Amino acid sequence: MNDTKARILGTSSDLFRRNGYTGTGLKQVATEARAPFGSIYHFFPGGKQQLGEEVIRTSGEEYARLVFSILDAHSDILEGIEVGFRLAGETLVATDYADACPIATVALEVASTNEVLRVATADVFTSWIDSGSALLRARGFGEADARRLILGFVTSLEGAFVLARALRSTEPLDAAGATVLAAARACLPPRE
Amino acid sequence: MNDTKARILGTSSDLFRRNGYTGTGLKQVATEARAPFGSIYHFFPGGKQQLGEEVIRTSGEEYARLVFSILDAHSDILEGIEVGFRLAGETLVATDYADACPIATVALEVASTNEVLRVATADVFTSWIDSGSALLRARGFGEADARRLILGFVTSLEGAFVLARALRSTEPLDAAGATVLAAARACLPPRE
Repeated sequence: MNDTKARILGTSSDLFRRNGYTGTGLKQVATEARAPFGSIYHFFPGGKQQLGEEVIRTSGEEYARLVFSILDAHSDILEGIEVGFRLAGETLVATDYADACPIATVALEVASTNEVLRVATADVFTSWIDSGSALLRARGFGEADARRLILGFVTSLEGAFVLARALRSTEPLDAAGATVLAAARACLPPRE
Repeated sequence: MNDTKARILGTSSDLFRRNGYTGTGLKQVATEARAPFGSIYHFFPGGKQQLGEEVIRTSGEEYARLVFSILDAHSDILEGIEVGFRLAGETLVATDYADACPIATVALEVASTNEVLRVATADVFTSWIDSGSALLRARGFGEADARRLILGFVTSLEGAFVLARALRSTEPLDAAGATVLAAARACLPPRE
């Protein structure tokens, strides 16, 4: 990918997760990405909505890779879940409670207001659920349990970000992690 | 409360939960509340931020009353949790996936951008956690379990709203409810 385009996407992703989609202006994107204003329309002829859609899709995919690589790095899935919530909390603290899910703020903003972007967030969440389910099935969970559990994992993480950022505390992440662990233990497949 | 002020608050609450804080303009509030534009500054001399703060505090309190009255209406707390998530799903469907938590969108928008409103959302979440913990302690849960469980309940509900609105499906609410139920069962106090 062209360097300038990559900078525009990265900067937009940072701004969207901190300030939201509506609260981010293209001039601010250009300034912070050190890109000429016109280059945004060069790379994204559809303007802010096209930029928003590409940011949702690319940063959503990257975030899933990050989160699921943590889950997958532990042979004990319970340990993977616990570490996932802990690292999410450490990242929040290290970034002054700004750096959470890259698409959650935008997802809530656009759910009832922008159908193109709503569909992009739906596609991202669907892809998370599919790859997370596959990961859990590979660990021996049944199909229905795997799907319910990964939905429980993602919803708990997203909701914990809402409360943790508001409260400036990692306690909601700890409690959400414990909730998901209890659900995982309740349907844990027998060890091989 | 003055009728016009009540209409301004109610309309703003609806608009904030659907369009977000940044995406809601005061002119739109005045029009939809059938209030003269100047009346907004009459009742909220601090303008949009003061209106935002009052909406967060009043609608946050109302929403807690609604949710906890559902939990409290069932002598079996597991049934209360299950019904709570089911009714949240039914409300979402009935409102075309618009009517979820009144403060979540605003909470994510302001967490890193507006300290006055961030504190208001933190106060609301703190009050939810305190009253929810008290409710669960009254049902026999220990103090630490009650607090962890209500945080698990609120984070799961908030995250499920993010996914349910994006996906236009109640499946995330069902899965989140099942996750919280598993956590509640794991620390259920002995029946009297």
